[in-house]
Amino acid sequence: MVTHIASRRNELLKETARLVRSAEERRAQGLFVVEGARLCFDAFRSCIPVERLFYVPQAEEKYREYLQPLQKWAKETYTLEPHAAELLSATKTSQGVYAVCRLPALLPAEKAPVQGKYLAAENIQDPGNLGAMMRTGEALGISGLFLLGKCCDPFSPKVLRAGMGAVFRLPLYEAPVFSEAAPKLHSTGFTTFAAVPDASAEKVTQCAFPQGAVLLVGNEGNGLLPETIGACSRRVTIPMAGRAESLNAASSSAILMWEMMRE
Amino acid sequence: MVTHIASRRNELLKETARLVRSAEERRAQGLFVVEGARLCFDAFRSCIPVERLFYVPQAEEKYREYLQPLQKWAKETYTLEPHAAELLSATKTSQGVYAVCRLPALLPAEKAPVQGKYLAAENIQDPGNLGAMMRTGEALGISGLFLLGKCCDPFSPKVLRAGMGAVFRLPLYEAPVFSEAAPKLHSTGFTTFAAVPDASAEKVTQCAFPQGAVLLVGNEGNGLLPETIGACSRRVTIPMAGRAESLNAASSSAILMWEMMRE
Repeated sequence: MVTHIASRRNELLKETARLVRSAEERRAQGLFVVEGARLCFDAFRSCIPVERLFYVPQAEEKYREYLQPLQKWAKETYTLEPHAAELLSATKTSQGVYAVCRLPALLPAEKAPVQGKYLAAENIQDPGNLGAMMRTGEALGISGLFLLGKCCDPFSPKVLRAGMGAVFRLPLYEAPVFSEAAPKLHSTGFTTFAAVPDASAEKVTQCAFPQGAVLLVGNEGNGLLPETIGACSRRVTIPMAGRAESLNAASSSAILMWEMMRE
Repeated sequence: MVTHIASRRNELLKETARLVRSAEERRAQGLFVVEGARLCFDAFRSCIPVERLFYVPQAEEKYREYLQPLQKWAKETYTLEPHAAELLSATKTSQGVYAVCRLPALLPAEKAPVQGKYLAAENIQDPGNLGAMMRTGEALGISGLFLLGKCCDPFSPKVLRAGMGAVFRLPLYEAPVFSEAAPKLHSTGFTTFAAVPDASAEKVTQCAFPQGAVLLVGNEGNGLLPETIGACSRRVTIPMAGRAESLNAASSSAILMWEMMRE
């Protein structure tokens, strides 16, 4: 059964709009909103539970191949008047398709399988960077992402868009204070590598990353916390001819992951 | 001598605002606008001619170390009322510092020195991608960037910001139709490499890039034009365990340039 929502004052719509704007609201409701036909379809393909599907009538014809399986997968389906749909949109040119998905639980970092190689992002603030790291990490075949410290919310509209659905497929783990989690990680069999702009560190080109390797990259402006670097097993750096300090977080992660995964 | 502009209707201000918004206007006037104290200072350090410097009085104290050399370097200096300065801003939180710089001439691609290695970007549409490619390219020490086809304007506010001033330091060349420019490039001594998602191409990990190497990457959605690929000396690809199709233009360029520059 499909219910039609014509008013911007509809309570369910307003509740859903809050999920688009606020990370606290997402955590409180345990839900997040995916925008765009392809990305919603990706959520379905990745078996992410879809609580509610919203779309404008105009989208039904245009995105039929994406919407049909979603209509069966979603617990509830609603059509929206375009002016009401605007409330849910975080983009300028919206397709008018939205899925309210169940927020996956983030396991503690030490629960990650040791058979694998991981990226760990500490205090990454820019949604575009976090999304790009996930997208590139998935493309290169990493086993998951550790979120350290206070990163931006991986389920915000901007990260979802920049990540192109990688967040549905890449297992996420968390460690709010890495220096406290490190002893457990090391005793479980992980080897942690702090990425640092320091010529005295191991060159990433000469470094063999074992199974259970975790590559840590830090905040855009400040890099990794000193206590995080101190708690890591090893330190790696990107040897460069050019202006090393000018590599951004997403590009340096791409190069470091590439080297980690190439073996 | 510093002139104060208090009105948003000031003709010079309106003329400058058009430079912020329009690539055609930038080409017509031969000028572009740099926003932000640090980026304006970068333009000065890179000896880019600054025709006009604008700043709000509040910025003078805060960004003194950046503004002082700029005040000497700029041909003309103006202070702006904050509500007038908004006309020039392309960001939400502006520092209120702007430099109107002379647009460098883009040389034809075949004029680039053969001693060097280059990135060539074809029909790149996203300013964030083009900026990131320049920033990463500069960091890795490439000799310049070739702009092929119709890329977004490298002197737009968004590209300038994403590039973190790389556009001031990285020589730019152009070739509107690569397949027509290719014979000249090859006879000058360049070797051109088309980056393609094709397992039958040379693996970038096994490919030696000679001096005069030009690495071509294509549009975000469509890759390189077929005739461009056909006109290249060689084809390279990124061998990957993960989902290759998911690497974005900036990340795949970072990995490809990293491999080109590592020798």
